[in-house]
Amino acid sequence: MGKVKKVQESEVIMTEMVLPNDTNTLNNLMGGKLMHWMDIVGAIAAQKHSNRIVVTASADNISFKHPIALGNVVTLKAQVTRSFNSSMEVYIEVWAEDIPANTKTKTHRAFFTFVAVDQNGRPIEVPKLEPSNEEEQELFDGALRRRQLRLVLAKRMDPKDAVELKSIFGFEEVIEKRP
Amino acid sequence: MGKVKKVQESEVIMTEMVLPNDTNTLNNLMGGKLMHWMDIVGAIAAQKHSNRIVVTASADNISFKHPIALGNVVTLKAQVTRSFNSSMEVYIEVWAEDIPANTKTKTHRAFFTFVAVDQNGRPIEVPKLEPSNEEEQELFDGALRRRQLRLVLAKRMDPKDAVELKSIFGFEEVIEKRP
Amino acid sequence: MGKVKKVQESEVIMTEMVLPNDTNTLNNLMGGKLMHWMDIVGAIAAQKHSNRIVVTASADNISFKHPIALGNVVTLKAQVTRSFNSSMEVYIEVWAEDIPANTKTKTHRAFFTFVAVDQNGRPIEVPKLEPSNEEEQELFDGALRRRQLRLVLAKRMDPKDAVELKSIFGFEEVIEKRP
Amino acid sequence: MGKVKKVQESEVIMTEMVLPNDTNTLNNLMGGKLMHWMDIVGAIAAQKHSNRIVVTASADNISFKHPIALGNVVTLKAQVTRSFNSSMEVYIEVWAEDIPANTKTKTHRAFFTFVAVDQNGRPIEVPKLEPSNEEEQELFDGALRRRQLRLVLAKRMDPKDAVELKSIFGFEEVIEKRP
Amino acid sequence: MGKVKKVQESEVIMTEMVLPNDTNTLNNLMGGKLMHWMDIVGAIAAQKHSNRIVVTASADNISFKHPIALGNVVTLKAQVTRSFNSSMEVYIEVWAEDIPANTKTKTHRAFFTFVAVDQNGRPIEVPKLEPSNEEEQELFDGALRRRQLRLVLAKRMDPKDAVELKSIFGFEEVIEKRP
Amino acid sequence: MGKVKKVQESEVIMTEMVLPNDTNTLNNLMGGKLMHWMDIVGAIAAQKHSNRIVVTASADNISFKHPIALGNVVTLKAQVTRSFNSSMEVYIEVWAEDIPANTKTKTHRAFFTFVAVDQNGRPIEVPKLEPSNEEEQELFDGALRRRQLRLVLAKRMDPKDAVELKSIFGFEEVIEKRP
Repeated sequence: MGKVKKVQESEVIMTEMVLPNDTNTLNNLMGGKLMHWMDIVGAIAAQKHSNRIVVTASADNISFKHPIALGNVVTLKAQVTRSFNSSMEVYIEVWAEDIPANTKTKTHRAFFTFVAVDQNGRPIEVPKLEPSNEEEQELFDGALRRRQLRLVLAKRMDPKDAVELKSIFGFEEVIEKRP
Repeated sequence: MGKVKKVQESEVIMTEMVLPNDTNTLNNLMGGKLMHWMDIVGAIAAQKHSNRIVVTASADNISFKHPIALGNVVTLKAQVTRSFNSSMEVYIEVWAEDIPANTKTKTHRAFFTFVAVDQNGRPIEVPKLEPSNEEEQELFDGALRRRQLRLVLAKRMDPKDAVELKSIFGFEEVIEKRP
Repeated sequence: MGKVKKVQESEVIMTEMVLPNDTNTLNNLMGGKLMHWMDIVGAIAAQKHSNRIVVTASADNISFKHPIALGNVVTLKAQVTRSFNSSMEVYIEVWAEDIPANTKTKTHRAFFTFVAVDQNGRPIEVPKLEPSNEEEQELFDGALRRRQLRLVLAKRMDPKDAVELKSIFGFEEVIEKRP
Repeated sequence: MGKVKKVQESEVIMTEMVLPNDTNTLNNLMGGKLMHWMDIVGAIAAQKHSNRIVVTASADNISFKHPIALGNVVTLKAQVTRSFNSSMEVYIEVWAEDIPANTKTKTHRAFFTFVAVDQNGRPIEVPKLEPSNEEEQELFDGALRRRQLRLVLAKRMDPKDAVELKSIFGFEEVIEKRP
Repeated sequence: MGKVKKVQESEVIMTEMVLPNDTNTLNNLMGGKLMHWMDIVGAIAAQKHSNRIVVTASADNISFKHPIALGNVVTLKAQVTRSFNSSMEVYIEVWAEDIPANTKTKTHRAFFTFVAVDQNGRPIEVPKLEPSNEEEQELFDGALRRRQLRLVLAKRMDPKDAVELKSIFGFEEVIEKRP
Repeated sequence: MGKVKKVQESEVIMTEMVLPNDTNTLNNLMGGKLMHWMDIVGAIAAQKHSNRIVVTASADNISFKHPIALGNVVTLKAQVTRSFNSSMEVYIEVWAEDIPANTKTKTHRAFFTFVAVDQNGRPIEVPKLEPSNEEEQELFDGALRRRQLRLVLAKRMDPKDAVELKSIFGFEEVIEKRP
């Protein structure tokens, strides 16, 4: 048994304006500030899913390709993709909007994981997540793969056991081609 | 030709105190704030290596295992591990110190990459890095592997070409065992 | 002619966590901080409607009945209710969420007005707004009444000319009952 | 009986410099930041009058006509105009000073109300206020009128009972002219 | 000749509330934050006297004897005591107020000096200051002594030439008693 | 008996970037912000020496001769120079680095004192400090002189008793020359 929740029950949208102190010498948003916002929006989504205090467990590889300029409006959307025992993976998408230029660009995507804890900081079980459409199902399925990558990178799983992971790196075919 | 620099020429140490606004409901440092500090200390190291404006290109997978409490002193040390054309990988280590309890714990490690740019934001060549001891050499060698992982994860490199990467995941032996 | 826009084209949702520095001695969110957030979310909505820089023109009477506690998640939703020549009225609703207690309360509502300006700060025409449903129509209609109240309070309209306003104060019947 | 206090016993002057993060794209002070300062200076005045913790109860309609530029010095003066049982109305005046240009302009005026509370957040009686000169008397008298407007706007008073209020809107003569 | 100004033309009062992030582990205001406020209030006074941009030239020895608690209201008053060619000495007094306890204590006093500069940062002449009462005269007279102490401590004046200074340290009588 | 510690056991290095909100109208770091950083880095050094909570006791005369520009990297190094019963003198050096210009300048030096306290804020004994080289010895010796200057300036020591101090002001020779 155990409670089951939908993705949209914990979706969070956050909007921020890029202020002078958030920018580097080129007047673009500093990567660290964006990660700070990602962590907050992701934590709120995980809190909403679990109705618990949550702590950040990990942030996956983030790539910063698109500069976001001073004065831009930044929208961050966070949704839980899958829950495990006490941990939840959260998917965060970021858009930057230059309003006078009327442009809105999807600039970043990231996966964070959070752990629900009780008042003493001990991990505590969270509801299961049930995907409601194809996109949510795809994120749900991929969560297992990303989890194995995290565990391998943290040296907490032997790469040989990372069955799901192999598909990312296209080694499956290598393996399957073995006689 | 081209300039060559030592690791210690660009090492940076940053010290911060965990203040109330940096903490979550459990009075522990929020992960996003720590990533913000990592980005700043890393950017300074990359600036010192390149004597250029730098922008964050990526943050590798970060795992948050050790909570850092309100009032703790946080020390961040950043060093460039290797430079490529215009990009630099920076290694960041984090210690948390509970001074009244006289404890100091290494709590986090992370790899960030930064790109040196000119005043118009265009990538520009940076000096080579020369390791001076075994530890620096190891970080230097591993940088290639981590770079391939980043490129594969960003779908900018075909996993089949990620020669260095295979060793992380122990697939080499699989491959070598093929008849 | 002139451009016409829908309400949802400029709706903005902002999410904030109440941090220690935002609170008073009772550990509740300070009213001034909430007004600061209202102004930002409202300005973004007005910017999106007008694709222009906007400046705050006025904040209507705001009543603070529900305290919002430290650690609560605050959601602000802003929508343009009506545009005049260069000004826009924005309606802002605020919810406070105590996530561990699983409660979400609508705590505040406010009306702000913003003026679209060009790079020299001179007012500039904005698109018309077209209500799409009954609720939007009601806010659209009320905007005229609230505008007259603002003008009367700012002593820029003679109360005798505030035709719309009279209905708020129920003086119509007084007037109508006159022989 | 009950304690009586003079206006000047709780007058507060606050001075702020407009910093980059306080400004919008036109380099002018954001309205929300100014309201934040108004709330703080007003709360301090109410605290001084009541010697109690106070919470913001309402902010009256504020009109933003004069832009305040980056680098300007902003002076806010708050004084209690009248106290009711546990609430106090505070009048706030704002001046902006461009020091190199040697200009000082009165840019804003606002009325806030605050409620004195005990440590459990329950309203508690405050001293009466005694006006000492004509200007203070005028603010004292007007406080009743503004209070009725707040109650009517908050739908907590039937406009028919808002006797004081009618004079603002010039409806008295209408009523008096009735046969 | 040159302009002459009174002390009260440039007096500044600043009021701040001690917030969580301003305090140390004992919940008292950090000395560094107080010095930050002193610098701002002092700079505004010097700007008002000179109608110029000013830069901080020095802060005299400050002693922190009285802790100021979280939630206290801090009042800082700055007045120019004397001007030299392009520099001004500013005297800053600090009071801490525990409003619920109805106590107000003068906690700190400090002397800062500021230099008026033009847009290129070059020192520029400032008006003379004319004391209007005994207290202002005393501060005016002492300014010369404090200036010599600053110059001696900065090794920019030979102690033998610090005629005014000798009186502070009571060496005059020593010297005078010499046969 | 009593514990003895070396200087390097409590050395602290802090690195900051000058952000827009830290600067004045000339885009240079405000003196007050620098003093704030000095206080933090100094307090951490004193905490490390004493393994106690510390409070700022005094800041000696600070002279601001070198402007530090927006975007510069500021390095602060703090070391305890000498401990007394419960107080410690800390020496702080500041460098400003314009990285693109490849310049690093020692811009400021300051002496702060801190007092170690228990949880109730009462002074508590700290370890002795043992200098390890000539430079540390010199700072150690000078600490006594600077302490007497502080006491005289705070009117807590009669200048006649400030034996060490006289040497600063070159009065010794005067006194010695007396017949």
